[in-house]
Amino acid sequence: MADQNNKKLVAEITSMDEDFTQWYTDVCIKAELIAYSHIKGFMVIKPYGYALWENMQSLLDKRFKATGVQNVYMPMLIPESLLAKEGELVNGFAPEVAWVTAGGAEPLTERLAIRPTSETVFSDFYKDDVHSYRDLPRLYNQWCSVVRWEKETRPFLRSREFLWQEGHTIHSTKEEAEERTQQMLQVYADFLGEDMCIPTIKGQKTEKEKFAGADATYTVEALMHDGRALQSGTSHFFGQKFSKAYDITFTDKDNQLKYVWQTSWGVTTRMIGAMIMVHGDNYGLCIPPKIAPVQVRVIPIQQRKEGVLEAAQGITDALKNAGVRVELDDSDKGPGFKFAEQEMRGMPLRIEIGPKDLEEGKCVLVRRDTREKIECAIADVATKVNELLPAIQKDMYDRAKAHLDTHTFAAHNKEEFIENFKETKGFVKAMWCGDRACEDAIKEEYGVTSRCMPFEQENLSGTCVCCGKPATKMVYWGRAY
Amino acid sequence: MADQNNKKLVAEITSMDEDFTQWYTDVCIKAELIAYSHIKGFMVIKPYGYALWENMQSLLDKRFKATGVQNVYMPMLIPESLLAKEGELVNGFAPEVAWVTAGGAEPLTERLAIRPTSETVFSDFYKDDVHSYRDLPRLYNQWCSVVRWEKETRPFLRSREFLWQEGHTIHSTKEEAEERTQQMLQVYADFLGEDMCIPTIKGQKTEKEKFAGADATYTVEALMHDGRALQSGTSHFFGQKFSKAYDITFTDKDNQLKYVWQTSWGVTTRMIGAMIMVHGDNYGLCIPPKIAPVQVRVIPIQQRKEGVLEAAQGITDALKNAGVRVELDDSDKGPGFKFAEQEMRGMPLRIEIGPKDLEEGKCVLVRRDTREKIECAIADVATKVNELLPAIQKDMYDRAKAHLDTHTFAAHNKEEFIENFKETKGFVKAMWCGDRACEDAIKEEYGVTSRCMPFEQENLSGTCVCCGKPATKMVYWGRAY
Repeated sequence: MADQNNKKLVAEITSMDEDFTQWYTDVCIKAELIAYSHIKGFMVIKPYGYALWENMQSLLDKRFKATGVQNVYMPMLIPESLLAKEGELVNGFAPEVAWVTAGGAEPLTERLAIRPTSETVFSDFYKDDVHSYRDLPRLYNQWCSVVRWEKETRPFLRSREFLWQEGHTIHSTKEEAEERTQQMLQVYADFLGEDMCIPTIKGQKTEKEKFAGADATYTVEALMHDGRALQSGTSHFFGQKFSKAYDITFTDKDNQLKYVWQTSWGVTTRMIGAMIMVHGDNYGLCIPPKIAPVQVRVIPIQQRKEGVLEAAQGITDALKNAGVRVELDDSDKGPGFKFAEQEMRGMPLRIEIGPKDLEEGKCVLVRRDTREKIECAIADVATKVNELLPAIQKDMYDRAKAHLDTHTFAAHNKEEFIENFKETKGFVKAMWCGDRACEDAIKEEYGVTSRCMPFEQENLSGTCVCCGKPATKMVYWGRAY
Repeated sequence: MADQNNKKLVAEITSMDEDFTQWYTDVCIKAELIAYSHIKGFMVIKPYGYALWENMQSLLDKRFKATGVQNVYMPMLIPESLLAKEGELVNGFAPEVAWVTAGGAEPLTERLAIRPTSETVFSDFYKDDVHSYRDLPRLYNQWCSVVRWEKETRPFLRSREFLWQEGHTIHSTKEEAEERTQQMLQVYADFLGEDMCIPTIKGQKTEKEKFAGADATYTVEALMHDGRALQSGTSHFFGQKFSKAYDITFTDKDNQLKYVWQTSWGVTTRMIGAMIMVHGDNYGLCIPPKIAPVQVRVIPIQQRKEGVLEAAQGITDALKNAGVRVELDDSDKGPGFKFAEQEMRGMPLRIEIGPKDLEEGKCVLVRRDTREKIECAIADVATKVNELLPAIQKDMYDRAKAHLDTHTFAAHNKEEFIENFKETKGFVKAMWCGDRACEDAIKEEYGVTSRCMPFEQENLSGTCVCCGKPATKMVYWGRAY
């Protein structure tokens, strides 16, 4: 009976093997992360989805602050003339900017863009805020929403409005700014790996793929369950491009007026999409314990039987006291439905307790990631849970890492390269000459893009897999979201 | 010397007795809460100001969650047709809405408003989200920024973009919704009183002053140092106005289809303005310990003398370990400048330690609120600070309460009423007949508005101070920000 109910609820989502795209959307909706709104590309983030984002924010914000970053808030609207001061940036973003043209009944004399990103606003602020080398570095970040008028939209992965953080720092030397660019990329890699159980490839974007206006863009690339790549965080080194366009100068120790060196770095709610596609399965979401809004759901079986609900409440209280994010499901739904719901929502552990368990003084713990059942004395439940949660966290990372490793292929020549991209299996490492023409050709012919030039370079062969000319870099290629 | 430096920095702000408005702006800038941006009415919230807001958010969010509220995120843009469904609301906000008319190069087929408030968006969402009495209540809140195209703008008090929270709840019964409206008003009053040391008058707005579209608006009104009132938080009971306009129905226990009952409630960064004007003085800000980004600043005197910096560091570490938000100022500025800066920024305590103190094994604690100096053995510093911070918190509230009480006047007749408003001294309590005409006349003649009909009613006389007809309510009147 329980199992039948379970199947019914699970049947509501498409199988990931059948249609991965539909599976993804089904999970977003059925796990109650989001709802669609009445404007294309704008979604409602529901309580469960937002609680997840709050946990991610909180852990990431601590990591930022530990490196000296401070939070600020900058205006949401940007005058067109301000946006246009740095040509590459405005060219990169102009096609996808939402324009405000009236305030109340009155038309504005100048159009205002809703921020698609805030390099221009931070630069405009820093210009007046910084005078001396003593004022540097400035390590500012903001958590906010941004708008980009995308054509194709999908929940979390690509939406017209999304939540993110954008860090914008300025420095007195090139070295310090470069170091900060790398440091924040490492913060992203650590957060994704340690908190979200998502292993990533760190590397530099090619000229073609880098951020509009940046001297260099660094990225952390993750591999989804379906073999597609997802750019999960980027960190940009701007050199002095913005400081020259926006006139951000300072008097250095040597009494010379100099331009500052600048960086920016950001991650978005897109990381939730990565989490879904790295850890999810045909039962729904699977959330890493560290970021799970509910780490344990306690589900009483035959809860009307004497003592059951009290015991379930006792376990819930014991876990709460032990610092676990725990919830008791004492609703009047059947246990099978409750199990399916807990699994759909990806809560890392559930605890089942019924009259028989109670007699024996035990309960049953069920891991969401492996669906393994573990018996445990009621008296030991807090200890056991506090052992299992870190174990699940570790195992989830290890499984994702194994998937990444077994789905990363080396192509030593054109034949191997083509063979690997007949179907989307994962990343393909291959040598590249460095020419844009080869990158363009590969994209056009095989639909794959350069994900990054990884920091950990290998020498697979001496020649570019595309043109056969001498190779300069090993590149990770993939089909990307 | 130290004192001279102090005077110099303090001289940078206008005296509050001379020009309260200029004093306010000076403090906002010199205490580094904000900077002006290049768009009128849009400000930059700097790290110190934003850290203050983060502390406020965190305390308030805990209070919300303790009452069962969940956070969500709703789209920032609202189609004009959706906004227009409830007539009173759109009429109230239409003059101050920022309109988006293009996405990239393409004009939109329908204008989109940047949210001035989100009743319409929540209603549109709830319509599809709620079906049964089992789905109720929904107690959702969001933290976000909103835009209102105000003509006159001032930092925190009135800006075109501001940060706030907006709670939107729906209920199956009128009683439950009314109770929630009151409950959230009480949360605001408790937060303002206990965390921000700001006593408030709780009451209901008159028909004239209530929120567009609400059946009833409740408010917490605070009194600023200059005798002006500041509306510091509002909670609205909508009845079924929005549920009928947006068709939010549910099937009740009796199997009947019914419209939900709705509330909304919000507070904004305006509360920072209240804090400045309630607690500030001619030395600058004075921040209540519970919300202060830095509770204690440790300032070494003659820090190059042997052992001084080490001792200051030791005190800092001891306080950090005791859970105090503490900062050591070991910059190369003079002590006088450092004192002035700590005072300007309103940090509740500073600790001075110099070579002489060190010899005697003591340090000097200086309260920001009273500027009282207290000697303390270095070994006892953590204990002493943890005694003083709550004492400061209490004293700041008591002083603000005393100011409110001594600046609230009862007018028993028209003469007394006029007399009291010759200059802005504070609140005036007076009887009112309930007619809009009298309210309008009083506003026009004396420039004062009805702040609220307080929950704690008194019977000052039988007749309206304006028209002399029988009175129905006692009203708090004031000059408002």
